[in-house]
Amino acid sequence: MSQTPDPSPAKRDQVPEQLLQDLQQAVLAGDQAWVKSTLESMHPADASDLLEQLPSDAFEATVELLGGELPTEILIELRDEYREDAVEVLSDEAVAEAIDELDSDDATAVLEDLDEDRLERVLDELEPEDRAVLEANLDFEEDSAGRLMQREFLAAPEFWTVGQTIDHAREHADELPTDFYEIYVVDPSNRPLGYVLLSQLLRAARDTKLADMMEAFHSDISVETDQEEIAYQFQKYSLASAPVKDGAGRLIGMITVDDMVHVIQEENTEDLLALSNVSSADGSDTVWESVKARAPWLAINLVTAFIASGIIAMFEGTLDRLVQLAILMPVVAALAGNAGSQGLAVAVRAIAEREMEGSAGRRAVIRETLTGVVNGFIFAAGVGLVSLIWFRDVQLALVISVAMLASFIWAGFSGILVPLMLKRIGADPAVASSVFVLTLTDTMAFFSFLGLATLVLL
Amino acid sequence: MSQTPDPSPAKRDQVPEQLLQDLQQAVLAGDQAWVKSTLESMHPADASDLLEQLPSDAFEATVELLGGELPTEILIELRDEYREDAVEVLSDEAVAEAIDELDSDDATAVLEDLDEDRLERVLDELEPEDRAVLEANLDFEEDSAGRLMQREFLAAPEFWTVGQTIDHAREHADELPTDFYEIYVVDPSNRPLGYVLLSQLLRAARDTKLADMMEAFHSDISVETDQEEIAYQFQKYSLASAPVKDGAGRLIGMITVDDMVHVIQEENTEDLLALSNVSSADGSDTVWESVKARAPWLAINLVTAFIASGIIAMFEGTLDRLVQLAILMPVVAALAGNAGSQGLAVAVRAIAEREMEGSAGRRAVIRETLTGVVNGFIFAAGVGLVSLIWFRDVQLALVISVAMLASFIWAGFSGILVPLMLKRIGADPAVASSVFVLTLTDTMAFFSFLGLATLVLL
Repeated sequence: MSQTPDPSPAKRDQVPEQLLQDLQQAVLAGDQAWVKSTLESMHPADASDLLEQLPSDAFEATVELLGGELPTEILIELRDEYREDAVEVLSDEAVAEAIDELDSDDATAVLEDLDEDRLERVLDELEPEDRAVLEANLDFEEDSAGRLMQREFLAAPEFWTVGQTIDHAREHADELPTDFYEIYVVDPSNRPLGYVLLSQLLRAARDTKLADMMEAFHSDISVETDQEEIAYQFQKYSLASAPVKDGAGRLIGMITVDDMVHVIQEENTEDLLALSNVSSADGSDTVWESVKARAPWLAINLVTAFIASGIIAMFEGTLDRLVQLAILMPVVAALAGNAGSQGLAVAVRAIAEREMEGSAGRRAVIRETLTGVVNGFIFAAGVGLVSLIWFRDVQLALVISVAMLASFIWAGFSGILVPLMLKRIGADPAVASSVFVLTLTDTMAFFSFLGLATLVLL
Repeated sequence: MSQTPDPSPAKRDQVPEQLLQDLQQAVLAGDQAWVKSTLESMHPADASDLLEQLPSDAFEATVELLGGELPTEILIELRDEYREDAVEVLSDEAVAEAIDELDSDDATAVLEDLDEDRLERVLDELEPEDRAVLEANLDFEEDSAGRLMQREFLAAPEFWTVGQTIDHAREHADELPTDFYEIYVVDPSNRPLGYVLLSQLLRAARDTKLADMMEAFHSDISVETDQEEIAYQFQKYSLASAPVKDGAGRLIGMITVDDMVHVIQEENTEDLLALSNVSSADGSDTVWESVKARAPWLAINLVTAFIASGIIAMFEGTLDRLVQLAILMPVVAALAGNAGSQGLAVAVRAIAEREMEGSAGRRAVIRETLTGVVNGFIFAAGVGLVSLIWFRDVQLALVISVAMLASFIWAGFSGILVPLMLKRIGADPAVASSVFVLTLTDTMAFFSFLGLATLVLL
């Protein structure tokens, strides 16, 4: 709590090479005090950035040197992979101590990375009541509200006044979460009735009843709600926080927008990587992790690529007589594949933003097919013209033009239909769809071009 | 401000077909009162969803029917394209009235869509002081903090106590923004010194001085700061809101997290679409808008595809004698292209999350190249084996294996290097990079496979 802000916070994310070197030397020299005080003088997010810039052995040496002295706020700011590494290096007692200091959502995030034996040992170190809460949290599905929520929040009965609420907060200052944005008004059986924004409470007269100023909830989140749905509600209703209910509709926790920003980024990353056939990735991945995340998709692509080859092989005789076809066929496949990927990306995005419900989906299929028709005509003309100039063969130019048009329409149609079908059957429309779409467009491109050529040119 | 929450808010985003039909009929019948009361009975976000589900002519008819009676909260919830459409239909007076009711950030968002003549006419309808504020906002660059910020916030001098601050808020209740999360403590020349969270103010004793409880800012945002940088600071420091300073370092506005969630989604969408060669997209796009957003990229791809054809044409003689090469060459190109896209997606994502600063970038180049080597060996073996079984030609299998390995290493290297170079020269690493990478991998695939075949098999 210093009174003057840091002189240039914007520069802080370019971790100075000098500081990085000083840190490594201090770790080598075993200077725990210097390392600790340096890290504590920074914002935890900046300190974690600094640690993440270390080579992985230096990172582990630093964590080992600090042990239980590694500030908990830094531990929780580390990216998942680094936090897992750090927790592996720390002793059970040090982990338990850290857990003890954290809000329940952050504590759960640390615990869920541990293997079963270790989890048991760490839980043994905790007070029985803390242990019970955390075990209950871990029982919820990964990515559900139950895992993401914190148990700390401020609830008040509806008959309380603004003055009573403020007095209560002053008396129980230590039990409140570090930061929150609204007070939940509950009935006698702890069911949430509405909320009062702190910024509204602040300006209301002391004798105003909470029941008279509370507003109805727009969110509807139970412990089982999936994080994608929660993030959607936060975005739609511009929420800063939202209450979480248990199976019986009682208030059991709170989710805040900073966690949702994290989820939104995560879901976006997943979509972007899935569209490029990567199952997961992080800046700190090893070669082996990268191979594991990509090879399975390449293996599928190996099969689909040979399917396309099979189509080409059907026209071996034609290719044998007209080598120009071999030169031009990748053009048809590349352009149609590109057109299909474009439609696919637009569709995946629109589905993620829930813009494809009901009649919007049907309209999109029509639009994408028509876009395929229009772009098909444009690029049929373009490719035909270039081919004509290159090979001075009108029939060949006509064949490639017609094949382009057919492939573009097919690309537009399959670019939208594949993700919509995947969504319909409950699968993630981003995963696997680009392999499907590219296989469909390649097959169509080779078949239409070589097939037409066989009919017309031979 | 009802006291019982809506019975099933989660179901509300599946707009019931019945309601949609009732609305359309009421609009046809000119029943303004019914339309207005129906929309007002819903959350503005739900009402805007309903309107967005209408066919575009029915949407415009609805806005026309409502005119100045279209609730302002709904107008601001509409997606950009719909809001632009609605504003076009409304009269100047109706737009001015709406502007008048909005916080300055939302008002700016509406005004920035207007053409110059119309903007002038609408501004003429406003009070001179409101006009001056909005004109000042519009003078800031698009996507800068100046455009995104609201002018409404609560600031207090450092010598105030908690009690004084609460009393002030109660007296000036109407001038405060609808919702805010912290109080900015300022010096006599209005420079921000630190902030006090409302949740901390709430629990502090009345006689506590703000100066004694304020915390230093972690964010550093001036009117010129770009939205991407602002969003980064919000994520990094888990901010709910942040102050905006003018050129002289004085407090001039506030940005809240809900706007940043919107920006984060926007930036993510841009990256995902750019990687698939789409310049912009929205669920409500027309065919013409779709063509415009995609054809330029396809045109570039047309050129690069013919470059690849040119490479193939260099080996016309080889292809003429060995038709198997024409059958197999798309396999090499498809797999290497896929490997390149994988690395590219990982790199674009890591750059967006600022995980590629300094030595991390160098490490990533090495990792991606090595991943290319490992996957290259795996798929060189795979493709070689399939080719051997298919064509029973050991030399051909060896040629395609070596070409695969070379193409994979090249794909890994260019998949990371292209986006890093684009970033280095200040360009967006997502835009154009996939065209570059695919051209590089195609060229390499065709050249290595056909070149080796010419040397070894002929």
